Amino acid sequence: MSSETPLSSFLSPVPEQFFGSDYAAGAHPRVMQALAETNLQKTAGYGQDEYCREAADLIRAACRCPQADVRFLTGGTQTNMVALTALLAPYQGVAAAQTGHIWGHEAGAIERHGHRVIPLPSHGGKVAAEDLRALWQNYENDETRDHIVMPGAVYLSQPTESGTLYSLAELTEISGVCRAANLALYADGARLAYALACPENDVSLSDLAALCDAFYIGGTKCGALFGEALVFPNPGRVPHFFSVMKQNGAVLAKGRLLGVQFKALFTDGLYEEIGRTALKKAEQLRRGLRALGFEPLGSSPTNQIFVRVPDDLYHQLTGRGFGGFWSKEPDGGYVIRFVTDWSAGETDVQQLLDFLAEKRENKE
Amino acid sequence: MSSETPLSSFLSPVPEQFFGSDYAAGAHPRVMQALAETNLQKTAGYGQDEYCREAADLIRAACRCPQADVRFLTGGTQTNMVALTALLAPYQGVAAAQTGHIWGHEAGAIERHGHRVIPLPSHGGKVAAEDLRALWQNYENDETRDHIVMPGAVYLSQPTESGTLYSLAELTEISGVCRAANLALYADGARLAYALACPENDVSLSDLAALCDAFYIGGTKCGALFGEALVFPNPGRVPHFFSVMKQNGAVLAKGRLLGVQFKALFTDGLYEEIGRTALKKAEQLRRGLRALGFEPLGSSPTNQIFVRVPDDLYHQLTGRGFGGFWSKEPDGGYVIRFVTDWSAGETDVQQLLDFLAEKRENKE
Amino acid sequence: MSSETPLSSFLSPVPEQFFGSDYAAGAHPRVMQALAETNLQKTAGYGQDEYCREAADLIRAACRCPQADVRFLTGGTQTNMVALTALLAPYQGVAAAQTGHIWGHEAGAIERHGHRVIPLPSHGGKVAAEDLRALWQNYENDETRDHIVMPGAVYLSQPTESGTLYSLAELTEISGVCRAANLALYADGARLAYALACPENDVSLSDLAALCDAFYIGGTKCGALFGEALVFPNPGRVPHFFSVMKQNGAVLAKGRLLGVQFKALFTDGLYEEIGRTALKKAEQLRRGLRALGFEPLGSSPTNQIFVRVPDDLYHQLTGRGFGGFWSKEPDGGYVIRFVTDWSAGETDVQQLLDFLAEKRENKE
Amino acid sequence: MSSETPLSSFLSPVPEQFFGSDYAAGAHPRVMQALAETNLQKTAGYGQDEYCREAADLIRAACRCPQADVRFLTGGTQTNMVALTALLAPYQGVAAAQTGHIWGHEAGAIERHGHRVIPLPSHGGKVAAEDLRALWQNYENDETRDHIVMPGAVYLSQPTESGTLYSLAELTEISGVCRAANLALYADGARLAYALACPENDVSLSDLAALCDAFYIGGTKCGALFGEALVFPNPGRVPHFFSVMKQNGAVLAKGRLLGVQFKALFTDGLYEEIGRTALKKAEQLRRGLRALGFEPLGSSPTNQIFVRVPDDLYHQLTGRGFGGFWSKEPDGGYVIRFVTDWSAGETDVQQLLDFLAEKRENKE
Repeated sequence: MSSETPLSSFLSPVPEQFFGSDYAAGAHPRVMQALAETNLQKTAGYGQDEYCREAADLIRAACRCPQADVRFLTGGTQTNMVALTALLAPYQGVAAAQTGHIWGHEAGAIERHGHRVIPLPSHGGKVAAEDLRALWQNYENDETRDHIVMPGAVYLSQPTESGTLYSLAELTEISGVCRAANLALYADGARLAYALACPENDVSLSDLAALCDAFYIGGTKCGALFGEALVFPNPGRVPHFFSVMKQNGAVLAKGRLLGVQFKALFTDGLYEEIGRTALKKAEQLRRGLRALGFEPLGSSPTNQIFVRVPDDLYHQLTGRGFGGFWSKEPDGGYVIRFVTDWSAGETDVQQLLDFLAEKRENKE
Repeated sequence: MSSETPLSSFLSPVPEQFFGSDYAAGAHPRVMQALAETNLQKTAGYGQDEYCREAADLIRAACRCPQADVRFLTGGTQTNMVALTALLAPYQGVAAAQTGHIWGHEAGAIERHGHRVIPLPSHGGKVAAEDLRALWQNYENDETRDHIVMPGAVYLSQPTESGTLYSLAELTEISGVCRAANLALYADGARLAYALACPENDVSLSDLAALCDAFYIGGTKCGALFGEALVFPNPGRVPHFFSVMKQNGAVLAKGRLLGVQFKALFTDGLYEEIGRTALKKAEQLRRGLRALGFEPLGSSPTNQIFVRVPDDLYHQLTGRGFGGFWSKEPDGGYVIRFVTDWSAGETDVQQLLDFLAEKRENKE
Repeated sequence: MSSETPLSSFLSPVPEQFFGSDYAAGAHPRVMQALAETNLQKTAGYGQDEYCREAADLIRAACRCPQADVRFLTGGTQTNMVALTALLAPYQGVAAAQTGHIWGHEAGAIERHGHRVIPLPSHGGKVAAEDLRALWQNYENDETRDHIVMPGAVYLSQPTESGTLYSLAELTEISGVCRAANLALYADGARLAYALACPENDVSLSDLAALCDAFYIGGTKCGALFGEALVFPNPGRVPHFFSVMKQNGAVLAKGRLLGVQFKALFTDGLYEEIGRTALKKAEQLRRGLRALGFEPLGSSPTNQIFVRVPDDLYHQLTGRGFGGFWSKEPDGGYVIRFVTDWSAGETDVQQLLDFLAEKRENKE
Repeated sequence: MSSETPLSSFLSPVPEQFFGSDYAAGAHPRVMQALAETNLQKTAGYGQDEYCREAADLIRAACRCPQADVRFLTGGTQTNMVALTALLAPYQGVAAAQTGHIWGHEAGAIERHGHRVIPLPSHGGKVAAEDLRALWQNYENDETRDHIVMPGAVYLSQPTESGTLYSLAELTEISGVCRAANLALYADGARLAYALACPENDVSLSDLAALCDAFYIGGTKCGALFGEALVFPNPGRVPHFFSVMKQNGAVLAKGRLLGVQFKALFTDGLYEEIGRTALKKAEQLRRGLRALGFEPLGSSPTNQIFVRVPDDLYHQLTGRGFGGFWSKEPDGGYVIRFVTDWSAGETDVQQLLDFLAEKRENKE
């Protein structure tokens, strides 16, 4: 029987983590500065303050959706769980790619709160409109359909957990399938900055607002200390959403902390700048990896890079604080994930590449 | 958008249903007789009566498991939901074949009560020990395993939803995997009579008691008016199970109705007789279908027979009350299911075969 | 620490129970007869049969509510839980008297399914319109109301758990409060036959249909073998209610059993006759108890009679199979409950009275 | 029908809030400094970092409980909900005073997650050992106890929502009742700093560790930016607690933010200093209020002061940003709450007193 991972094993023997995630450091300095400057102000709690209002206004403007209902929550799993279960009727489930975060990395949060995640094939991390159509068609064709889980929503992420991007054409087609079948479309934007800043991307915030029933603009992984901005383009979509958040422990007493941060992120193009910085480093890392003979898996153009490495190299890398676990392959070896972020310069990329080059030489 | 099936469409235009299910008729006459004979007796409620005690004793004896805790519930979905959620910790899920009833036909009851059903490949309706081993190994190997759904139980049915049977060797291997990984093994015996009476079957009630953490002996589909007998071979397995049943609306006030029925079913070999009758008819039907050129799909040796038919024949058959919907095939046609039961003689089998022969002739 | 009541202690040492409940016997002979006569018929399952349609038609007619949606479930706790949780939004609770069944005797079924029961003072078992008004006013006046449980429904029972009755004036006032505040009004009619047949009662089935959002007509305690008929006067009140039932294990495969029974109960005035018989016996028992110096507690005019007795008499009575536990008083003694039903004649009432007279004599 | 409070109404027309809560400002400057200093470090996520380990060590030392399991969560409602539902079996409820936060201000979070809150009388905000004994005795004495909610835990807060304190004698007695009945004892320490620093207090952190099954040391209201430290004195109390947190959206990706803050709070006596500062201001405010003829309600010796004021004064005060809503009295007037915190000096207390004095003069 497997027991819970002992906390002691969680303790990093190394002082720092590099490329293991985009949440290893604190906040972008400009976000931290905004928190420090406003720290001793006294405001109303629970998001009922001026900063949250200003941040929501900035987000509404960025989404070109002046009527949107914008809410601030503290983390991604929390936002997915609270928003999706609020969008679903008790007898409905939410479809997601088998690589989706709600299927693979949220410890069953959706099911714990009463709803099935309906796993769909992953196409490079993405859900296919075709599969959604088939899912709905099967439901409609099933003469015993009142005995099965009714699809009620679709979950996708932009970029995906595999780092890939939905094109505007793909997202528009998916949205069309959803509207025809009355499925709520929800986009997880935990890493949205890295989609928005990507040259390959053609999906804007206003496209998301036009095509989705709800989506969130990630803060935690995109330069905030913590926090996500959940957008309901149609403000009447979920009544009493504050109480829904509250009963799920998702309301921050000092709610203005989220407003202050998102105001900073959406001022003077900071959110875009954060995205560009990470993507530049990712590009540098990709080139370097290829030069060393490590071909990235999949086709992520964003800030995540997946590489297959042998067991010993995996342990050397993670032991040194480079990269993070993605999967252990049944036939040996690991997939390691490198993630770039908004921080630092190009030195750390070179450190990783040098480390890899050295290990390779030692081997030869 | 799909709306709920209107109730009016549920109304059968035909007076009777044949082979659509094994729950189309009421109770076996001897069960009905027992209910009628005891009808005016007054006993304690909620299963705290002599009939429930006697029925439990008979079942304990049949299972050669004198210490077993035996509980009576009213239906299969209810029993699966109450038992499985009681066996699982909040952060655990239950693995099942994608063809399993809890995945496909219970409207998300397990998830509604807080737990993921983890779908596994179906091997003729069965879960493979190999897949369970891999599931557990993946969980163990996952360095982020505290972020994923921990497997906590395995659901299987005997016979399966496809009518197939686990052999004793298969079940023993699965049980071994479960015990090594501390997974609770649960067997859904909605149609257990049709497994126990099958010549191909080598799994006895005492084998189930030895290998499972919980299983139920189906009544509803095996000659009872309604009711299932849930067996926990280890009586301390779920504390306060009565309250668990109660808070799920699964306690019958006149609990003795279940005791009376199971006492009748486990007296003078009635449960076995019910199984044999249905299997004899199934065998007759299989032979007849093959003679007419309809080759049953899969390899069910029990009371369910699946046949692929063209659209028009499907509608003729169900319009006449023969068989029931199984699936609509993407490339046209239907899979229709014929199910035999304990009732009646051989006439009705011949009626179905004659109907099919006639339709075929008309076509030619 | 208290452990679960051992099952062995549930075993009645006496062959019969008298006046312990109205669910000690099976079904009224005419109901049993209907089940026996239809036993070998084969119909569609899950309530999609002619008997359910006919029973629903009879109930719609009795309620003078031709558009009502009528559903059949197996027991009271199940019906309360499935219906109430379907009527509530996730952030809402249901108000009930502290004596209400959902507060006191359902093992937390409502909370297990996600909603608070908001306890209100009991006025002879009844909820007061005034208290509901205050509850709603407090919610409205609370400037932090988004942090509290929003009242979303009101539960009451007719007759109440104390055997008392709401007058039409009371129920009309409560319904008015509910409609003004958009609270769903739900009536638990587990013992509705004993209200409808009571000379003091002025609330008809059509009044319930006019005043409630949902109510159920009790079968289990009113002559059926088991089963309750849930009525939604507004048929669009809960979409996909079949799936809601299914995912709570509340659908009977042989659903027609419920249709057959309710058809019998609503044919030739049987439901009223059942009520009258029990009330006649209750009246006889009340007179006899008073003659022996046992003054019933409260003011129940229906089939439940509550009497306070000393410890030894309580154990003598229940040891002999008479009456049932209601409460143990902090300062000694018990409240015992006697419940009459539709069965038998007047002999058993006299037996109880003789037993009491004898015990009293022995004491003197 | 009441609709959700519109977000626009949440917007404070005044720049600042005084004495409305102890979460109006950001973090204590030393906490903020620690966050700023560590901001660009890169560590492992999800609380698996050195700061969380150091903070947990400091807390274990402060509690004299070297084996304790210490977990960091983001807010009070979240901590109560995750911890309590993890401590309870599905059929159990948690007892709390009717003034308790889980009964009154968490929007039904406990029930949403499956468990009843059992309301007990409030004795100045406190639960009485006597009432707990009676609750358990009633459960034990109830012959139908398997049909009722089994008490499984007790919730209390130190200080209470009314600002009062449990004495060590009271807490010891309550703990004794809990242990005798196998009830988990849980203490909500949202404002624990204001108890620990209070001259009247005789309950230490090590007492809490010795007497409770779980308790949390509040950060959000006691000088942290956000965060609570949950302590399980017995480390094996809840297995797989990380997954329980995760599936409730209660894990912070940058978990080290909580470690950094609690390390600062438990270094050089900061937590005590924060408590003392607030209590000193509360004492000054209490004296001033009394001098103006406003007698505080109840007997809070901590940082909360409740005063009854007429309607117009209430609106003047809150309109000016002073104090916050506590309750609207049925017979007119409001109870306003003043809360002091760790911030600032004595100027603001005098401002409030001057404001009150001026309003009083204008009236006279």
